[in-house]
Amino acid sequence: MHIRVILPVITASWVESTKEGYAAVVRPSTEISVVPLDWGTASIECHRDEALVVPDIITKVVEAEADGVHGVIIDCMADPGLDAARELVDIPVVGPAQASMHLAATLAHRFSVLVISEGDIMAVEHQASRYGLSRRLASARPIHVPVLDLEEDPEATLEALVAAGEKAVREDGAHILIPGCTGLAGWAPRIQAALADRGSEVPVLDPPSVAVKQAETLVDLGLSHSRLTYPTPPRKPIRWPWKTPFAPQ
Amino acid sequence: MHIRVILPVITASWVESTKEGYAAVVRPSTEISVVPLDWGTASIECHRDEALVVPDIITKVVEAEADGVHGVIIDCMADPGLDAARELVDIPVVGPAQASMHLAATLAHRFSVLVISEGDIMAVEHQASRYGLSRRLASARPIHVPVLDLEEDPEATLEALVAAGEKAVREDGAHILIPGCTGLAGWAPRIQAALADRGSEVPVLDPPSVAVKQAETLVDLGLSHSRLTYPTPPRKPIRWPWKTPFAPQ
Amino acid sequence: MHIRVILPVITASWVESTKEGYAAVVRPSTEISVVPLDWGTASIECHRDEALVVPDIITKVVEAEADGVHGVIIDCMADPGLDAARELVDIPVVGPAQASMHLAATLAHRFSVLVISEGDIMAVEHQASRYGLSRRLASARPIHVPVLDLEEDPEATLEALVAAGEKAVREDGAHILIPGCTGLAGWAPRIQAALADRGSEVPVLDPPSVAVKQAETLVDLGLSHSRLTYPTPPRKPIRWPWKTPFAPQ
Amino acid sequence: MHIRVILPVITASWVESTKEGYAAVVRPSTEISVVPLDWGTASIECHRDEALVVPDIITKVVEAEADGVHGVIIDCMADPGLDAARELVDIPVVGPAQASMHLAATLAHRFSVLVISEGDIMAVEHQASRYGLSRRLASARPIHVPVLDLEEDPEATLEALVAAGEKAVREDGAHILIPGCTGLAGWAPRIQAALADRGSEVPVLDPPSVAVKQAETLVDLGLSHSRLTYPTPPRKPIRWPWKTPFAPQ
Amino acid sequence: MHIRVILPVITASWVESTKEGYAAVVRPSTEISVVPLDWGTASIECHRDEALVVPDIITKVVEAEADGVHGVIIDCMADPGLDAARELVDIPVVGPAQASMHLAATLAHRFSVLVISEGDIMAVEHQASRYGLSRRLASARPIHVPVLDLEEDPEATLEALVAAGEKAVREDGAHILIPGCTGLAGWAPRIQAALADRGSEVPVLDPPSVAVKQAETLVDLGLSHSRLTYPTPPRKPIRWPWKTPFAPQ
Amino acid sequence: MHIRVILPVITASWVESTKEGYAAVVRPSTEISVVPLDWGTASIECHRDEALVVPDIITKVVEAEADGVHGVIIDCMADPGLDAARELVDIPVVGPAQASMHLAATLAHRFSVLVISEGDIMAVEHQASRYGLSRRLASARPIHVPVLDLEEDPEATLEALVAAGEKAVREDGAHILIPGCTGLAGWAPRIQAALADRGSEVPVLDPPSVAVKQAETLVDLGLSHSRLTYPTPPRKPIRWPWKTPFAPQ
Repeated sequence: MHIRVILPVITASWVESTKEGYAAVVRPSTEISVVPLDWGTASIECHRDEALVVPDIITKVVEAEADGVHGVIIDCMADPGLDAARELVDIPVVGPAQASMHLAATLAHRFSVLVISEGDIMAVEHQASRYGLSRRLASARPIHVPVLDLEEDPEATLEALVAAGEKAVREDGAHILIPGCTGLAGWAPRIQAALADRGSEVPVLDPPSVAVKQAETLVDLGLSHSRLTYPTPPRKPIRWPWKTPFAPQ
Repeated sequence: MHIRVILPVITASWVESTKEGYAAVVRPSTEISVVPLDWGTASIECHRDEALVVPDIITKVVEAEADGVHGVIIDCMADPGLDAARELVDIPVVGPAQASMHLAATLAHRFSVLVISEGDIMAVEHQASRYGLSRRLASARPIHVPVLDLEEDPEATLEALVAAGEKAVREDGAHILIPGCTGLAGWAPRIQAALADRGSEVPVLDPPSVAVKQAETLVDLGLSHSRLTYPTPPRKPIRWPWKTPFAPQ
Repeated sequence: MHIRVILPVITASWVESTKEGYAAVVRPSTEISVVPLDWGTASIECHRDEALVVPDIITKVVEAEADGVHGVIIDCMADPGLDAARELVDIPVVGPAQASMHLAATLAHRFSVLVISEGDIMAVEHQASRYGLSRRLASARPIHVPVLDLEEDPEATLEALVAAGEKAVREDGAHILIPGCTGLAGWAPRIQAALADRGSEVPVLDPPSVAVKQAETLVDLGLSHSRLTYPTPPRKPIRWPWKTPFAPQ
Repeated sequence: MHIRVILPVITASWVESTKEGYAAVVRPSTEISVVPLDWGTASIECHRDEALVVPDIITKVVEAEADGVHGVIIDCMADPGLDAARELVDIPVVGPAQASMHLAATLAHRFSVLVISEGDIMAVEHQASRYGLSRRLASARPIHVPVLDLEEDPEATLEALVAAGEKAVREDGAHILIPGCTGLAGWAPRIQAALADRGSEVPVLDPPSVAVKQAETLVDLGLSHSRLTYPTPPRKPIRWPWKTPFAPQ
Repeated sequence: MHIRVILPVITASWVESTKEGYAAVVRPSTEISVVPLDWGTASIECHRDEALVVPDIITKVVEAEADGVHGVIIDCMADPGLDAARELVDIPVVGPAQASMHLAATLAHRFSVLVISEGDIMAVEHQASRYGLSRRLASARPIHVPVLDLEEDPEATLEALVAAGEKAVREDGAHILIPGCTGLAGWAPRIQAALADRGSEVPVLDPPSVAVKQAETLVDLGLSHSRLTYPTPPRKPIRWPWKTPFAPQ
Repeated sequence: MHIRVILPVITASWVESTKEGYAAVVRPSTEISVVPLDWGTASIECHRDEALVVPDIITKVVEAEADGVHGVIIDCMADPGLDAARELVDIPVVGPAQASMHLAATLAHRFSVLVISEGDIMAVEHQASRYGLSRRLASARPIHVPVLDLEEDPEATLEALVAAGEKAVREDGAHILIPGCTGLAGWAPRIQAALADRGSEVPVLDPPSVAVKQAETLVDLGLSHSRLTYPTPPRKPIRWPWKTPFAPQ
């Protein structure tokens, strides 16, 4: 099985570590390839960023299907372009936030998301509402570390994550936690251990792992999104600056 | 007062009629300018279309503020790019669907939206949910006429609108109706009259008129969106194929 | 255009200032007339007060339509008698709370209402629920200054408003504020400025201004409430102590 | 124990039958007195009617407490004046709709209300929402017989009730029914039997019986409404055309 | 009238005090009998306990109907076995939590439940949701005293109840309180008085009293649960270690 | 990896086919063992059945953990005993309904469940509510074939499933379907194909497959339920007729 991970930013230097992260959790027979964007932003932290990455994300998803891969993961907790991508392909397209929120809801009464900044709170609430999980969301708690600085002082980042996690558990009633940025891939065990040290024993999900396991499951079971929810777009005039399968020039 | 209408498609031939439509309902002292997209699709009927029009919409909104206009309307019932645009400017940005749904909710117990196709039903439900109005939405009823064919056989289009409207009123409990496509600008009185002829006396809103009146109101009162909801995006590396104010090259 | 403002209390001494307040925000061609009640209470702070003002409010609304005015505003944040008034007339009847809550919901993720006392919290929650906006209401925060004392020590009143506003923004997640009493007409800019001074930059609506702009919009567009939601009441025996158009004696 | 029933209309001819109806279901030691209104309408079918009956209802409730009665029932399914009345007295005040909806929700998954006309549907939905029971309301089904005509052709009224009840059970998923007008007091067994004859075996509540049993229960247990929800109104100038305990002249 | 109270634990030593408690609030003509379980747990504090008491609860409920009693109360705030019991008998079966939550919702805007431990919070939220009352639940506040220790140091238990109650009123907006364990039967007046002493005047319900009054009401009115909600179970092979009417051996 | 499937009925003759069904979808290295109940009912169709199977289900789950298995599936769409089982063990316990509803919600806008009889509709609504997915549930549609007769006339069963599925898609807006009984394990492809033949192209999930894939995923990722949601039960006197690990005798 071949799973394509779309790294939905222009930061090509992250390709290798992203690939290693995903490869570490898949089954031996699952192949992982990672493709960054040609056009877009260096990280995704606001609606403007999301607006600018989606056109190339859906380009890359359509190319993935043409390449014969079996499933696609959009490697960002905003699940950018998920709906548009599903319209354009038949293979399963997985969003780490959608997959993680639903898994969290099966394992605990309420979940919290540890987000980058105040501005993400509304976004997480909208996601939970869109995914139908508003009543299971305990809170979104910001850590106040910019995405591009997460790895700069790992101790400080971990401390910020643990502090936000403790508030989520003690004040908001969270019973499970989701790191709200795929830039935190692989941090879950450290966060969980540090929280346990301080007396808060809660599972902490690793969204990329959850996403790739869901992709494997969907491919195993021959399942994909419903075409009634995501109908194939009609053909129509499109003017676009780069060559894409959906806008032939 | 100068209101800029973004015609969020590449179909420049609609500029003149769009301008006339808006000019007909504004106050004499309000100037209307209409700007179409350079990049995007010919109409907006699915998530792919929305993905491809938003980058140039937000470009045009930022240019509008630089041009000194007082308010902006994004002339499409999907309200594409509304959130991203508001992040980037201080002047009010109005979405016809958002403005119409809220006005409908003040005038009647429940509203229905007359949409283009089955595929729009989920989109309208998501919009109503996002705008906080799920419980006031009676239904979205499709007319099954493609956007680009609306003007081809006006009698047939009107018949489809009235048939959908009657079902909305009689079966879904709608007390007010919203045409769900700005391509239907100006049709509201005809729809309302035809429905009254058949015994269903309900107000029918004209979303572009509602939008431009809300824009005038916001400018009059010196109001705009909250910066806590729409914080200014951080500066970061952006690679983009056309020149935009938010991605200097 | 002639807009009639019903001052829904027996305090006739407020007529002049009310008229000035509304006149300051309307278009030059809009005429404002203000009519107080003959029967009722001196202010509206509880269900008893509301019960006693509604009969004369609806009398005055029916008289307004007979006088040929184009729209009516009920100048109280409880929107008292709004539903009954709409049953009795064809012209638009605007409630400042309904108009302000819906406008607030278009400009920000969540709004808070700055109310007079604890007793108003439930009333605001019921209003938001009835208007379909429960999920957009961040909170109702009491200022603990009685309506009839608002102007007594303006500095203290402003301080109470700002303190309540700060709590709404910092603790409840409000992104926009609505003063919850029309006795606070005109205070919005002062509240907004004082909050900005303390670091909370949020828009503060002036509900009477929002209401009169909505009235102008509805008259401009030829719109009014749906008769399916507000059917004309049937004729029946009515015994009433004062002469009203709906209870001929 | 003495329970006062407020007959919230000016139709004094109904006093005797109302008293008999209530007396038939109370315990032998419970005394029932019935008081009609001096001011108001002949029946309650719209917001205007409700507006005009509430002032005298609350007058009569305050007088009831002064008379030393132990509890009060407002004999109308709109529960008119319930909130205002509770502000003014310490004894329990019971609304038949509130009591019946909550009892129905304990006995079945979903309830429907058999209402007079289309206009009542929104009112019942608002009641259910206000009482916190929206998700337990299956539907409000109109019988299209005016309140003042209910007794004119009892066979036709029963047929209309049964037809509406069958639709509620078969199409809306109701598992229990509530006649939506106290003018139908005592009809419940007949409706239940007729529905059973046609194959729909569902309980049908008699709201006045449920209300008076709740009043007895509250008096027995020494319980009444919470003063935090219904605080005593402040003293203030009131101008009112008839003498009432809350507006001394 | 004969009401059977199922004491849904194996602690037979509580039979006498339970009977006295119920007998103190019923009408003189109402007979109370109390039956403990033969199989199950000593108290009910988790899903495991509930799983182990339900089989014998429903055995005892079926036996109660066979004994000719008129109504049954399951004496535990988890309302264990309520749904299954109603499937098996025609007489009314009352759950103290269901009865109390609905009564609380008629007397105040929001109620809180004073529960044993953190683990009960989710259970109360699920109950409120299942009974359709989520939006009326202010909070569940734990007292951190195990069920079997409630009577050990009554002063400490009262202090814990009052502290939790104060938090519910002041921080969560509760306007009425429900002790969340029938082991607290009869404590309501003491809790209410102690809270009033500290300035929080709220009604405190006694769930067993509320339940038995509801049982009397249902028997008086000839009402029981809807068979559409609780259909009679089909006959099928059942293997069970003790003799029960529903599993003949 | 060793996954234990609890067959939660006394019908031991189903063990072999159940094992084959699960073994067909797991990875080669995953071992499946199936254990039926010693005490309980022959099928699970009502609350009584659920009450009688849960005690032995949790016995078998505790034994499974003692046997060293890595995860447990409770093979019934009522997810009976899921909460109690999770309290008693650390290994993941998966319910097919919970797993399927969440997966369905990630692949489509709304899902419907094809249930056995009318009586299951309320149960599915309660499940969806409890799992936080009420707004994603389109409907529960009964097929009117008893569980024990499903295999008797497979053509008739398939026809009933397809007819119910078509109604769910065309009338209720379902975009994906879930067979609501594990007795239908393996039928999903046939249902999906037959629906496609009639023009309704929707994915149909096979809940046992989804459940076992979720179990594999949880074991792979080292995840299990949150102990804050499912705390370990306290030790206390338990009297039980058969020997269980949680009730030592």
